[in-house]
Amino acid sequence: MSIDSALQSTLDASRKSWVDTADDPACDFPIQNLPFGIFSDTRDRSPRAGVAIGDRIVDLAVLEQAGLLALPAQPNATNDRRSVFARDSLNAFIALGRDAWRSVRVQLSALLARDNPRLRDDAALNARALARLADATLHLPVDIPGYTDFYSSKEHATNVGSMFRDPEKALLPNWLEMPIGYNGRASSVVVSGTPVRRPNGQIKLPDAPRPVFGACRKLDIELETGFIVGRGNALGEPIACAHAETHIFGMVLLNDWSARDIQQWEYVPLGPFNSKTFATTISPWIVTLDALEPFRVAQPVQQPVPLDYLRHDGKHAFDIELEVRLRPQRARRTTTIARTNFRHMYWTMAQQLAHHTVSGCNTRVGDLMGSGTISGAAGDAFGSLLELTWNGKNPLELDEGGTRTFIEDGDELTLAGWCQGDGYRVGFGTCVGEVLPARE
Amino acid sequence: MSIDSALQSTLDASRKSWVDTADDPACDFPIQNLPFGIFSDTRDRSPRAGVAIGDRIVDLAVLEQAGLLALPAQPNATNDRRSVFARDSLNAFIALGRDAWRSVRVQLSALLARDNPRLRDDAALNARALARLADATLHLPVDIPGYTDFYSSKEHATNVGSMFRDPEKALLPNWLEMPIGYNGRASSVVVSGTPVRRPNGQIKLPDAPRPVFGACRKLDIELETGFIVGRGNALGEPIACAHAETHIFGMVLLNDWSARDIQQWEYVPLGPFNSKTFATTISPWIVTLDALEPFRVAQPVQQPVPLDYLRHDGKHAFDIELEVRLRPQRARRTTTIARTNFRHMYWTMAQQLAHHTVSGCNTRVGDLMGSGTISGAAGDAFGSLLELTWNGKNPLELDEGGTRTFIEDGDELTLAGWCQGDGYRVGFGTCVGEVLPARE
Repeated sequence: MSIDSALQSTLDASRKSWVDTADDPACDFPIQNLPFGIFSDTRDRSPRAGVAIGDRIVDLAVLEQAGLLALPAQPNATNDRRSVFARDSLNAFIALGRDAWRSVRVQLSALLARDNPRLRDDAALNARALARLADATLHLPVDIPGYTDFYSSKEHATNVGSMFRDPEKALLPNWLEMPIGYNGRASSVVVSGTPVRRPNGQIKLPDAPRPVFGACRKLDIELETGFIVGRGNALGEPIACAHAETHIFGMVLLNDWSARDIQQWEYVPLGPFNSKTFATTISPWIVTLDALEPFRVAQPVQQPVPLDYLRHDGKHAFDIELEVRLRPQRARRTTTIARTNFRHMYWTMAQQLAHHTVSGCNTRVGDLMGSGTISGAAGDAFGSLLELTWNGKNPLELDEGGTRTFIEDGDELTLAGWCQGDGYRVGFGTCVGEVLPARE
Repeated sequence: MSIDSALQSTLDASRKSWVDTADDPACDFPIQNLPFGIFSDTRDRSPRAGVAIGDRIVDLAVLEQAGLLALPAQPNATNDRRSVFARDSLNAFIALGRDAWRSVRVQLSALLARDNPRLRDDAALNARALARLADATLHLPVDIPGYTDFYSSKEHATNVGSMFRDPEKALLPNWLEMPIGYNGRASSVVVSGTPVRRPNGQIKLPDAPRPVFGACRKLDIELETGFIVGRGNALGEPIACAHAETHIFGMVLLNDWSARDIQQWEYVPLGPFNSKTFATTISPWIVTLDALEPFRVAQPVQQPVPLDYLRHDGKHAFDIELEVRLRPQRARRTTTIARTNFRHMYWTMAQQLAHHTVSGCNTRVGDLMGSGTISGAAGDAFGSLLELTWNGKNPLELDEGGTRTFIEDGDELTLAGWCQGDGYRVGFGTCVGEVLPARE
């Protein structure tokens, strides 16, 4: 069986696993998904590579050691002799290349298939190789050498332009010509579950002659996805748009926490800095582009037709349902404050990567590229509180805990995302952060 | 002798080395300097740590192995068992901390002192431990986890604001309140000597309805220095301005290559991206803050007095002479096109680091922070061709090779910098890049 037909079979909607929690239609991690992450648990406190299935995590290093998971032979370019799975990031595994990712996917899909007794019936190995998701600590899945954030939702850019610049000319002239992006701060990307401290910074009130220093008063989320570069490019060698998807390992949910008051004062002329660098949260499981293949859809029509280097044939958007939920401190009820879909994005991931590298800029394995805030057309499809409350003018009514213009201390914000299949979903899990009070 | 008086003695202007080329008053690397870098040569092709002295490089791994250089005992947190000096970056050494940097400085200063026979007279060890600078390949001295570029010259910000915005309001209101900065692209930071390919990108001509794609027509340099973070800070724990200098390992020269036409079209509202990410060149030798101590001077008076978190007592600028030189392809003569001094910078490195982290943003060992273009008041003290030619309006006359508005293919641009002592100079060496034609 060739890799392609084998790969195709891993996506079959009727495929089932002997990990029976994976077959719950509401489970994010059915056998069709097989997302990669880094975990540790009380049995082994060393972070290592795993794949989520149902309520379990498959320990890849254990499977490899047991001879159930083969990797292509590779020269080890570093002084680290450990298995690529016995590491605290997926970078070494991802660096093996797309054929290796796909081969591991195919092997795991076979091992976990309902009718395959090999791992299912080996009680001892099964116990060692399958950890409980509920008992695990999930870590940042990759070392991130570079983080770039785009701004690719037309609705979001229009909303922000209307509020802060000119409603008549909300979309700037360059926006329709290129996927506008900026360099973010990689050091402060944290994994879901990490508390986020409200930042201090300079805030300039409209009537004050000078800024004051203090805690952010307009703390916000940005609902985004991010993709992880799986194959980099050398300096001076751009990635062509038509091949850009082969450079992408997979996707995560991304919360681009934003201090709107700090941002408004600092961002001209060099862009956001302190207002964004205090934290960016990503979900722990990287859903591979292969797993998303059945949910590929056409991107919005682009008018004007982009310059040649940004053109690609075919469908390059993905139908990913997205939600934002807010739970105030000590509240029992969570309010879903936004519902949207990744398919609305004007610029595709392939276009983002082609644009990023067209100057000759190099990318590296593990680079994180944020989509930009994902907003749809309707009022509750906006991916930020800035837009949902129109810069605080229209407070949101929560199901429990009063109203919100921006985030309050103790609020827990959750992003969720999934692709809805026929009787199953390929989910991203959640991307969660609770906001702590500012440092005194 | 305490570390402080020992450290003081390494700075003595009368100190001489038995490496007699170090005593040339025009040599950048006298015994008072001792800058750190990474080199390889035909004797050993593995990149490793060295210190420049005269026309030689001291191989630190050889000295350590010979028992002449002691390091504090440190737990090795990684799976890499090599000496911190036998690596292809200085990060592991720098991570040992400031006492280790200073102890190595003091030990090297003693070993290289004219009257110390230990290394001088051990012919075999001397031959192994001292490489020839002329035979060496110099590498990027640090792995750079994050690169931030500031914009801290008042003259430069005023010039740019005059040209691209409003001459009446050239300096934006936030500029006098904070060291404005933005995240740069760490992946494309290259070491001096690496050729730089002219980038392609989107260029919007004033009368055209849409941008065109093509080679940059306004390629420029930015004369900057950069500092290397020697001690990071944890997420959520800002670095106080008063202590910020203890977090700095040292300084380099930095050329922030800039595509002005691409920049002008792309930079609103999120800042420069493709116009800067194609290459940033740094000099190979990191001059430690300890070596710069005798050249500490007062920074310009800041008015308005900055907010509390940006205040520090004492002198925090450094008297570093800077030059930019241009040599056209095949030309024999080089023209010095700009002469300025780092002491003109309005915001200090300590203020930059305090501002960077005040939101809680973490920094890491090896982070590179660019000063921003260094421009003085006079016309030839401008640190970019944009300013020197006033956006191409006033071409520069070269000593050989015609005139220039912006950089032409084949031009070699060199930054040089040094602190002038009494009979010696503590130099940075050079930061060189030749421009190659754009990719077809």
